Amino acid sequence: MSFDKLQDQIRTMKNPTVLGLDPRIEYVPQHIQDECYAEFGHNIQGTVEAIYRFNCGLMDALCDIVPAVKPQAAYYEMLGWRGMEMMERTIRYAKEKGYYVIADIKRGDIGSTAQAYAEGWLGKTKVAGEDVENFGADCVTLNGYMGIDAIQPFLDVAKAEDKSLFILVKTSNPSGGDLQDMVAGDRVVYQVMGDLTERWGAGTEGKYGYQATGAVVGATYPADMKELRQRLPKTFFLVPGYGAQGGTAEDVQYAFDSYGRGAIVNASRSLMCAWKKTDGDGRDFQEASRKAAIAMRDDICKYVTIL
Amino acid sequence: MSFDKLQDQIRTMKNPTVLGLDPRIEYVPQHIQDECYAEFGHNIQGTVEAIYRFNCGLMDALCDIVPAVKPQAAYYEMLGWRGMEMMERTIRYAKEKGYYVIADIKRGDIGSTAQAYAEGWLGKTKVAGEDVENFGADCVTLNGYMGIDAIQPFLDVAKAEDKSLFILVKTSNPSGGDLQDMVAGDRVVYQVMGDLTERWGAGTEGKYGYQATGAVVGATYPADMKELRQRLPKTFFLVPGYGAQGGTAEDVQYAFDSYGRGAIVNASRSLMCAWKKTDGDGRDFQEASRKAAIAMRDDICKYVTIL
Repeated sequence: MSFDKLQDQIRTMKNPTVLGLDPRIEYVPQHIQDECYAEFGHNIQGTVEAIYRFNCGLMDALCDIVPAVKPQAAYYEMLGWRGMEMMERTIRYAKEKGYYVIADIKRGDIGSTAQAYAEGWLGKTKVAGEDVENFGADCVTLNGYMGIDAIQPFLDVAKAEDKSLFILVKTSNPSGGDLQDMVAGDRVVYQVMGDLTERWGAGTEGKYGYQATGAVVGATYPADMKELRQRLPKTFFLVPGYGAQGGTAEDVQYAFDSYGRGAIVNASRSLMCAWKKTDGDGRDFQEASRKAAIAMRDDICKYVTIL
Repeated sequence: MSFDKLQDQIRTMKNPTVLGLDPRIEYVPQHIQDECYAEFGHNIQGTVEAIYRFNCGLMDALCDIVPAVKPQAAYYEMLGWRGMEMMERTIRYAKEKGYYVIADIKRGDIGSTAQAYAEGWLGKTKVAGEDVENFGADCVTLNGYMGIDAIQPFLDVAKAEDKSLFILVKTSNPSGGDLQDMVAGDRVVYQVMGDLTERWGAGTEGKYGYQATGAVVGATYPADMKELRQRLPKTFFLVPGYGAQGGTAEDVQYAFDSYGRGAIVNASRSLMCAWKKTDGDGRDFQEASRKAAIAMRDDICKYVTIL
């Protein structure tokens, strides 16, 4: 129920981190690019296959130590429908490897349209009399600017099929405050969004006390994160902004409850591009990513003990 | 520059409306479904082709009287990558027919990710040394919850390639107010978002005085729309909510400036499913949609004179 499956995997691996799969072709070691351009052509299909092979290599290298992956839709959409096809394959492969899959789509639209998104990404679509699973993620990220209409269809699927979702509350980017930090009565906008998130998920608590409606809370504002952790005791946090964006292990500790639960920290480039910081030519990308993933886990676990 | 191309087409056709292409297979007349299931199989490909044929039929029927189309990504994504491939084809066909294409994607993410979305949807992606156009829309809808970081990459492409964008300000759905109507100082949240939208587009005015950053403002709150029209004199409005959602021509008149410019009104189901309200079996779908489109145009033009 709700985030139980994810929390169970985090506890088993003693690792509250998620591998962000935000691939650009520049991240892919040269030998994989060469192979795929030779095999599929020096064109978009070659590019797509090189990224897929890289994604799979990363997932192979980390599947026994990292509990979840988070493919970011933008990097697949930028390659058009071929990129989306490869995203479907990436999610399928991730599930075969046992990862909990968070599709980072940040969708948000009115009821009937949110219903279509929910069918495509979390649930099933009725096609020619059959229920077809398309993207088939375990969890998605959503934008709540349009209110509960944008969330309810996903929540319905989450309840029916034991899935979950994260709603943008306090984002990690520099201009996140343009709207989110505006004072709204005795709160600020991101607190309003956080309170809505906790309210919308009422009644969906799993065995760890967390609801199916989680929140995205960036690592770059640790004081706000600490306050949100207390404010939203039933809301699981997805924490971007560790590493490249400046968030530290000391910062992200505040996302967790006193049992070391209730949060997962994302890293994308620092894991995907770890090979660029070694002396190698990229043939060591799996080993480099594994070392980086272990270093990240150990870094966070200096501050967080997962019970 | 900015919305000039769209406004020019609206003036030529004397019609400030956009055909929303939000297709579900249930909207497609039976004879088209039968043809495509026979030709491509009783499966997802057959479904995709039936929708494509229907989309094209609608666009053929309206291209001399309706200036723009707005495909809603959700209805294509719900069919997985095959749906996305068909969305690319739909956009390509629309441009061949002379339509201004607004991709209704409501994306919003941090800088580097927004950059990827902007490349995929408005601009070009560098692939194997070449610039590849994927979705290639003229305009997109965006969500500004994450601030200017989520908008700037799109604005850069818009400036460079004479394109434009709409940011969600006041949406037409019942729960739009959950966040948008919260009081924030001496404004409410949607006014804050509107003011940001107008500020972000500064310096991109086209010949009609409108910036490249438009706003989505729902028809279902006419008093708010009237106030926003005065508040945001340089912001072009995309107006959903006419027809099925309850907005009337009398309501939407407030979206326009005193020259009858600066806004476009969307209709999706009322045009796509017009054939369901005739006595026919769906073979008359083009004629039915054309009649509905003309009726909508004439209805709005009772209140709005386009100079």
